[in-house]
This record gives sequence, structure tokens and C-alpha cells, in this order.
Amino acid sequence: MHAPRELPAAAADILGRIRARHPRVHCITNAVAQNFTANMLLAAGAVPAMTIAPDEIAEFVAQADALVINLGTMDAERRASIGIALGAAGDRVPWLLDPVFVDRSAARAAFAAGLVTKHPRAIRLNHAEFVRLAGAGPEPAGIARFARDHATVVGLTGDRDIVADGARTASISNGDPLMAKVTAMGCAASALVGACLAVETDAWRATAAGLILIGVAGEVAADDAKGPGTFAAAILDALHRLDEATIIARARVA
Amino acid sequence: MHAPRELPAAAADILGRIRARHPRVHCITNAVAQNFTANMLLAAGAVPAMTIAPDEIAEFVAQADALVINLGTMDAERRASIGIALGAAGDRVPWLLDPVFVDRSAARAAFAAGLVTKHPRAIRLNHAEFVRLAGAGPEPAGIARFARDHATVVGLTGDRDIVADGARTASISNGDPLMAKVTAMGCAASALVGACLAVETDAWRATAAGLILIGVAGEVAADDAKGPGTFAAAILDALHRLDEATIIARARVA
Amino acid sequence: MHAPRELPAAAADILGRIRARHPRVHCITNAVAQNFTANMLLAAGAVPAMTIAPDEIAEFVAQADALVINLGTMDAERRASIGIALGAAGDRVPWLLDPVFVDRSAARAAFAAGLVTKHPRAIRLNHAEFVRLAGAGPEPAGIARFARDHATVVGLTGDRDIVADGARTASISNGDPLMAKVTAMGCAASALVGACLAVETDAWRATAAGLILIGVAGEVAADDAKGPGTFAAAILDALHRLDEATIIARARVA
Repeated sequence: MHAPRELPAAAADILGRIRARHPRVHCITNAVAQNFTANMLLAAGAVPAMTIAPDEIAEFVAQADALVINLGTMDAERRASIGIALGAAGDRVPWLLDPVFVDRSAARAAFAAGLVTKHPRAIRLNHAEFVRLAGAGPEPAGIARFARDHATVVGLTGDRDIVADGARTASISNGDPLMAKVTAMGCAASALVGACLAVETDAWRATAAGLILIGVAGEVAADDAKGPGTFAAAILDALHRLDEATIIARARVA
Repeated sequence: MHAPRELPAAAADILGRIRARHPRVHCITNAVAQNFTANMLLAAGAVPAMTIAPDEIAEFVAQADALVINLGTMDAERRASIGIALGAAGDRVPWLLDPVFVDRSAARAAFAAGLVTKHPRAIRLNHAEFVRLAGAGPEPAGIARFARDHATVVGLTGDRDIVADGARTASISNGDPLMAKVTAMGCAASALVGACLAVETDAWRATAAGLILIGVAGEVAADDAKGPGTFAAAILDALHRLDEATIIARARVA
Repeated sequence: MHAPRELPAAAADILGRIRARHPRVHCITNAVAQNFTANMLLAAGAVPAMTIAPDEIAEFVAQADALVINLGTMDAERRASIGIALGAAGDRVPWLLDPVFVDRSAARAAFAAGLVTKHPRAIRLNHAEFVRLAGAGPEPAGIARFARDHATVVGLTGDRDIVADGARTASISNGDPLMAKVTAMGCAASALVGACLAVETDAWRATAAGLILIGVAGEVAADDAKGPGTFAAAILDALHRLDEATIIARARVA
């Protein structure tokens, strides 16, 4: 059992493990997000792979330490690959669901609801996506109930991030408004949580760690950036250089 | 009726509306351009969506305020999605055509010619693409005639941009040579025009506004950039921070 | 016949030809790499095209000066397009193979082995990929033998790059550790070699030139960068501005 106040130190420790072990994180993600997501994983010390071809994804996932499934720009090939990838992941490879835009498409919402039953270790989403997926408001009690009902961890990001596994809830107030001005920032956050899941078996700690790391990196980046273009580069630099002292000093977790 | 000399103020006004209303701009675009295009839209204040899956695109377009159809990297799925998207757009959602590389492929030129008959509010293209599509040289009179014949606005970009609707013609001389050294800059310009079409019903003003905004942002960015890499980030920063005084001071419209 | 010590001057000369002739380089590459690869080609002075649609790729390749085939994120459409593209390339358009991740997938390794028999002018890969493709260790003698057996040039990149055509071997010790922290850097290096092949018929010189250019640009970029995010932009700036004096002063070739 861990208290929220222990999470900043846990985040620093988990980042150290990613840098030491270079976990392989396989991402089935959308074409908009692939490049930035891969660079975010590399900046953290992880090793990304992004293939979605149905006839080779099983082999890639079998060699991975974590799997991230992101629904942005769904297509028939990605849907087929997701099923194969989950089969290859089995119980060994922890996986995270990022149900992008389920609030915008009924077909996508139905597909995501099916995935929720397949035991993701964590689900990272925003308020509108949570409301659609859970059929409930984004209050802490509702988030905790959804997490408990589905035996998963919910990482709901917004001005304040909520991380809940049904028994424990943390609130993270890091980040910068420029993060909403860079496409695929949420997808990259999900991938970073995936890297944390690869080296930390407590999915609640891993999810909180990922969101603390990207939030603190975002704050450091904002000090340097002149706008969203330079910010996108600066957050990669910041994550690459992030040290324990900065994480402890900046993390706002309750 | 508006004269070209009113366009810089119109551009500033339209940018203000994009920032206030956050229009949703759905883009069917190529994989090379998706990320930069999404970031350009976010930097302007718009909300991009990029899915091309045939079974969900109708739902996305139905919720969009503008639609941008870009032919770079055509494939069977994108072609199918374009037809569905245009059906969903109907007369309600203004749409723009960017016939990338029609000068390089006969199949693409034939497909684009079909799209021109489906009433795009605007067509953004370069000289070689115009020549192939129009079967005529890129002189102002020929551009105006093509626009009038197809009841659309042509935004032909180059050292000098020409924006014509058949009755009115504007010439815009902003921009920087580094813009040609960043891939997808034309695609991003098209998307920005799409955002302008979402908040301005006069398509000639909207098209001119989009090209003024990206041209002025490019000039501001060039002051900061050391080459095409830093320029790509700087133009997003510049668009994000662009104010009316800078637009009025820098716009060169005749 | 050329000695390794002549290669830095050759690299500067070849870069000058790319800037003067603007060769068209068609890339069949993965979605992760497309944007950065296109920007690397533009920064060098080349003109990228990236379409992979089977029904138009022949026309694009017929107008190209070089072809780059990269196997990252393979799918059925890309595989079909590769066959058509090679038919269109014939003996006229030089082509390069980048067998990304053949060490991670048996299907991909088998497909790559088939491509090696189709006479690529050069193959750019890393150590693990070479070991899988050649069934031999990455020692200079084994690399040279593989190149000779397949009548191609091997450009094996790592801390030290080896370029061998069976008769000649060069070793290049440029670059920076940050290059491994930016996704698609290897893919971009391959594309740059493709641009060199477009203007230089001696494939050994062209391959060495491409790797010298990206390595030196990487070193210049590292002087400016604060981490992998700013580095990715800085290497494009550096390549865009690279001059003969810098290439000669920095190239470490043996």
C-alpha cells in the first residue's frame, strides 16, 4: 500500500529503472501520434516499436515489455492487429488502453467498451472520453468505482489528473496549458505510462509516475518555450534530463 | 464586396474568431503531413481531427466545422473515405481541396478533377498543380476564370500567392523561402484556410486570411530560425502568438 | 578507385550536387519516419515524395532520381507497392534498402532477403539487422564479403560506421549519442544516402558521403542542442547550412 505522498519519489525511481533497463514498448497508435510518441519513449530511455501489420505484430509484442493501444485514427488493419496483439500479450505483457475520441464516434466507443473487458492494467483518457466510456461523470468517486468494477487503473488527465485503482486515489496538479496545444500529447503521456508499467508491477504507482513525469517535464519545458512549436521539442529535452531533485521539488500530488 | 486592402484586418479578425470559437477541422490528409497539420491547427486555436476510417468518418465530419481534403499519399481507404466525408459534409460543412502532386500522377489528376465538380469552397495548390488541374497557365486571368467556372476560390501559392473567386483577385507577398524547406507546409496552409472557412462564410476572405496568417507567421519565424528545423517549430510559435498589429504591419496584399 | 581519405571532399562535392540538382527521392517508408525523413531530404536540397499507393507508385518512381525502400511498419499495401516500385525503377533508378527490424520478425527477414537479390545499390542497416540478414557477425571482413556476394554496398551504422563494397572499405567515426535518441534517425540517414545515390554513380562513395554528412551534421547539432527534442530540429538546420570547410574539418574517415 502506498500513499500519494510517496508517489514523487516513486516516479523518480521508476524513471531510473526505465533508463537502466530500456524496456521495449510496443504501440498500436495513430499516424498523427507515432513520431512524437516514439520520441517521448526514447527521451525517457525506453525503446519504441510501432508496427501494426497483422502478420508480424504477434512477434513484436512477444518481445515487448509493455503494450499501448491507442484508438486514434482507427482502421480495419489496426482493429485486426489489436486482437492479435492482445493474444500475444497474454498475462505476461502489461497493456494500457487510450480510448481516444470515444466521445466522437459510436463505433469507436463500442470497440473500446469491448477492450475494457480484456483487462488493461491502465486506461488513460480525458474527461469527455471517460464520460462516454463509463456512462458517468468524472468525479473521483465515479472514477474509483469504474476502476474497481473493471479491475484496472484509471488515469484521467485534465487540469488536475486523477489516478484511481478503486482502493487508492491520487490527484496530480502538474503540467502546463501548452500541453493542450501540441497534438498527441495525451497519446505520448499514455506511452510514457506504458513504459512505467514495463518496470513497475503496481499499476497505480506506474500510472501516477507516468503522469507526474510528463507533467513535471511540461512545466520545465514551458520555462524555455516561446510557444507550442518550441514547447514540443523542449518537453522531450526536459524528460531526457529530468532528475530526482526536480521531480521531488515540482510534483504536486495529493 | 471587399477590396484587397481590407484583407489584413479581416485576417486578424478571422484569427480572433478561430481563437474564440475553437472550430473543429477534420482533415483527410497524408501521413507525412498529419502531425504538422494538427499542430498548425492547434497553434491557430482550432481543434483538429484526422481519422480516415470509412466506418467512422461520417460521424466525425458531421461534428466538424470545416473539412480539408488533401490528396498526398492517396490510397484506397482514403479515396473511399473522401466520398463518405463529402456526403456527410453536404452543404453544411465548408470544405477545401488540396490536390497535392496532381502534376505527378494521372490517376490522382483524374480523381482531383472529379472532386472539383463537387463544390469545394476553396482549392489551395501550387503552380504545377494548377497547370495540371486547370489545363491553363497560372496567370491571374486564367486563375480567375477557373475559379468562376467552378464557383470556387483558388488560392494559388508561390513566391506571390493569388487568391481569386472569379470576381475578386488578391495578391499576397508574404512568407519566407524556408517555408519551402519544411515538408507539409502547403498542407498546413490548406488546413489553416480550412479553419478560416469554419468561421467566415466569404470564402475569398477566408482563403486570403489563411494565406496572410501563415505568410506573416513564416516571416516572424524566419527572424528566429537558424534553418528549416528550428523554423518548423518557430512558425507554430509565431502563429500561436500572432497579434493584429503584427498582421497589419507585415501583410503585403494588393 | 578512391581511397577513404578522399571521401570527406567527395561528401562535400556530392552535397553541392544535391543542392544544385534537387534530385527527386521517392521513399517507401514507415509512418513513424515519413515526416522527419522528408524534412531531412529537404534540408539537404533534395525533393521527397512518399506515396505508397500501388496504383500510382509506378508513375512516381518513373519520375524519381532515387528510390529508398524502408521496411519499418510493413503492411500489405507497402509490400505490394515495393514490387511495383522496383519494376518501375528498373536499371535506371538507383535504390537503397533499409531492412528495419529484420532482427525482430521472421516474416520481415524473409521479405528483406528476397529484396537483397534484386540488386539494391546500397543497404543501410545496424548491427543487429546485419547479423540477421547476413547470418554472420558484423566484422569488416564479413561485411565486405556480404557486399561482394550481393554486388552491393553495405553501410552499417553504429558507434563507427562501416561502408564496404567488397573491394573498398571505409570507417566513419562521426555522429553523436543523441542521434540514437531521435526516432527515424537511421531511416533519415538512409534517405540521405538515397539522395547521394541520385547524383553519384559510385555507390560506395555515395553511401559514405551520406553517412559522413549526417554524422557531421549531428555533431554540429549537438553543440546547440539541450536534448533530443532540440537536437532533432538542430540536425536539420545543420545539414541545411553545412559547408565544405566544416565537413573537411570534422569528418573522421579511415
